[in-house]
Amino acid sequence: MSETVNRRIVLASRPMGEPQPSDFRLETGLAPEPGDGQVLLRTLWLSLDPYMRGRMSAAKSYAKPVLIDDVMTGGTVNEVVVSRHPAFQAGDIVLGYAGWQDYALSDGSELRKLDPAAAPVSTALGVLGMPGMTAYTGLLTIGQPKPGETLVVAAAAGPVGSAVGQIGKIKGCRVVGIAGGPGKCRYLVDELGFDAAVDHRSPDMAQQLRDICPNGVDIYFENVGGAVWDAVFPLLNDFARVPVCGLVAHYNDTGLPQEPDRTPLLMRAVLAKRLTLRGFIVSDFASQAEMFQLDMSQWVREGRIRYREDVVDGLENAPDAFIGMLKGRNFGKLLVRITP
Amino acid sequence: MSETVNRRIVLASRPMGEPQPSDFRLETGLAPEPGDGQVLLRTLWLSLDPYMRGRMSAAKSYAKPVLIDDVMTGGTVNEVVVSRHPAFQAGDIVLGYAGWQDYALSDGSELRKLDPAAAPVSTALGVLGMPGMTAYTGLLTIGQPKPGETLVVAAAAGPVGSAVGQIGKIKGCRVVGIAGGPGKCRYLVDELGFDAAVDHRSPDMAQQLRDICPNGVDIYFENVGGAVWDAVFPLLNDFARVPVCGLVAHYNDTGLPQEPDRTPLLMRAVLAKRLTLRGFIVSDFASQAEMFQLDMSQWVREGRIRYREDVVDGLENAPDAFIGMLKGRNFGKLLVRITP
Repeated sequence: MSETVNRRIVLASRPMGEPQPSDFRLETGLAPEPGDGQVLLRTLWLSLDPYMRGRMSAAKSYAKPVLIDDVMTGGTVNEVVVSRHPAFQAGDIVLGYAGWQDYALSDGSELRKLDPAAAPVSTALGVLGMPGMTAYTGLLTIGQPKPGETLVVAAAAGPVGSAVGQIGKIKGCRVVGIAGGPGKCRYLVDELGFDAAVDHRSPDMAQQLRDICPNGVDIYFENVGGAVWDAVFPLLNDFARVPVCGLVAHYNDTGLPQEPDRTPLLMRAVLAKRLTLRGFIVSDFASQAEMFQLDMSQWVREGRIRYREDVVDGLENAPDAFIGMLKGRNFGKLLVRITP
Repeated sequence: MSETVNRRIVLASRPMGEPQPSDFRLETGLAPEPGDGQVLLRTLWLSLDPYMRGRMSAAKSYAKPVLIDDVMTGGTVNEVVVSRHPAFQAGDIVLGYAGWQDYALSDGSELRKLDPAAAPVSTALGVLGMPGMTAYTGLLTIGQPKPGETLVVAAAAGPVGSAVGQIGKIKGCRVVGIAGGPGKCRYLVDELGFDAAVDHRSPDMAQQLRDICPNGVDIYFENVGGAVWDAVFPLLNDFARVPVCGLVAHYNDTGLPQEPDRTPLLMRAVLAKRLTLRGFIVSDFASQAEMFQLDMSQWVREGRIRYREDVVDGLENAPDAFIGMLKGRNFGKLLVRITP
């Protein structure tokens, strides 16, 4: 293996605002050699997710930032090519965390074996993986959906949002999705069974949403912030729950909006309407992983949960795909196929 | 009774900003006559509470506003003077909702008989009443205090805050109170057993609080908002809980602060630190009333919960006392003694 070329994409510089192609650098080296107790992994699929924008910044958050010149982190589906670990054999397909590169070593501790016969292995990065579990745990634990309630979900055509909406339907909610563009909105209603969808690019989004939610909003699954939050906020009902899962509209912010500080307005609504705002990341609910796999696999098998993948070919195209995703250019779970 | 004079304080006008004496009007009339199934109540004690500021405004909130020329609402301890209701006798002492007046009728439905031998009847408006139950339910249900955690409580010398802090001590928290002035701060530490207190009037409040909370803040019981919130917010730990009970610093606001909009900052912290912000009012937790009475009565009897009353004599002095309370002039539960 010592002659095998490993390409990797490293963080070249920390973005100011929107990431630029120059913030990434493609490097070429040799694939590492596994030591005792290690496996060498070849990456088949790389997952691109909005949280990675946070890792590019030096700001303190729930995870450590990627260091300059270090390989970008990311969830992956890998094939074990060489194993010096008793639990793995060459040819095993695993869910891992190899990052934006062709090859990586692992001591096996964070790997989970996948059964290619049970489901397409790429779903371990989407509907049956982190995004699906984010939807499942955040909606059920924090959102606490009840039949007849109105659930609004932002970034609804994305991997988290589309699962949130469909689980909401299973739980008996009236589900309204917010997505970018008429194509995504049609998809939500026609293919995923949402009750309605609003295009956040419409100039009258707030009015449309008001018309479509005549009984207000009981659960708002927050993925974006910004103008979408502004449109939903006045519609929140007494005792509404807001799982805060992402704020993609703000990830590229370089400062605060030069408008009057609305913090008191938000806090007064929290009090007067007895709102619950609660942030989470999927690992906070790790104890629900088994229940999630059970429920979600069944729902997918039964066709009650559908999913869509947006596949980009080639590691070298990951930066551009990632930059586009932050602008909503993807349609479905964004995956990079590293090894065809 | 038809010759008995009834004085009442009505809402004369809706305040713009701080309430003024002219927003209230003292009227004199005759006490009403009870019909079948009614009792005539004489007010002994009137409770003054910050939430009443909200009732003076026309803005939609969790309770209907007081109408112009209507008597100000408020919790009261009353003596039954005439009863035409089978469940009550003249001389009974009851907890009621007679408002800012000497006499009122009731059909008995909202009355609760008090036992003057069990505890001073005024405590039914304080530590054993709405403020005490607000502290108990908000702290235990939303705050979920655990031994060793740091609990910060605002308006800590008030009836809610002082109970929050003392219950926090019972639950094993390190308790820091924020109050206005050195006298109140000394009281918190020396008499109520708080671990520390910070005077929010100090110019370096935020720095003092940071020094006093070296391990951050796990629970912030929010009663005030404004500068106190600004000081606590950056100290909140991952998974911190914020029961939002009151925002007295904002009740007189007439507009938004002319500073950059910090809503994104708040939402990003909710996400990155997985904060829980949840507003509540005590009636949301009505099902806990029995447990509260049991626990709190025992803690008061055992001397583990102490309380302080700030008594003003005479209905005519209620407006001034109320206006002062919104500025933090009271020290302890503010009560108006109507009938000596």
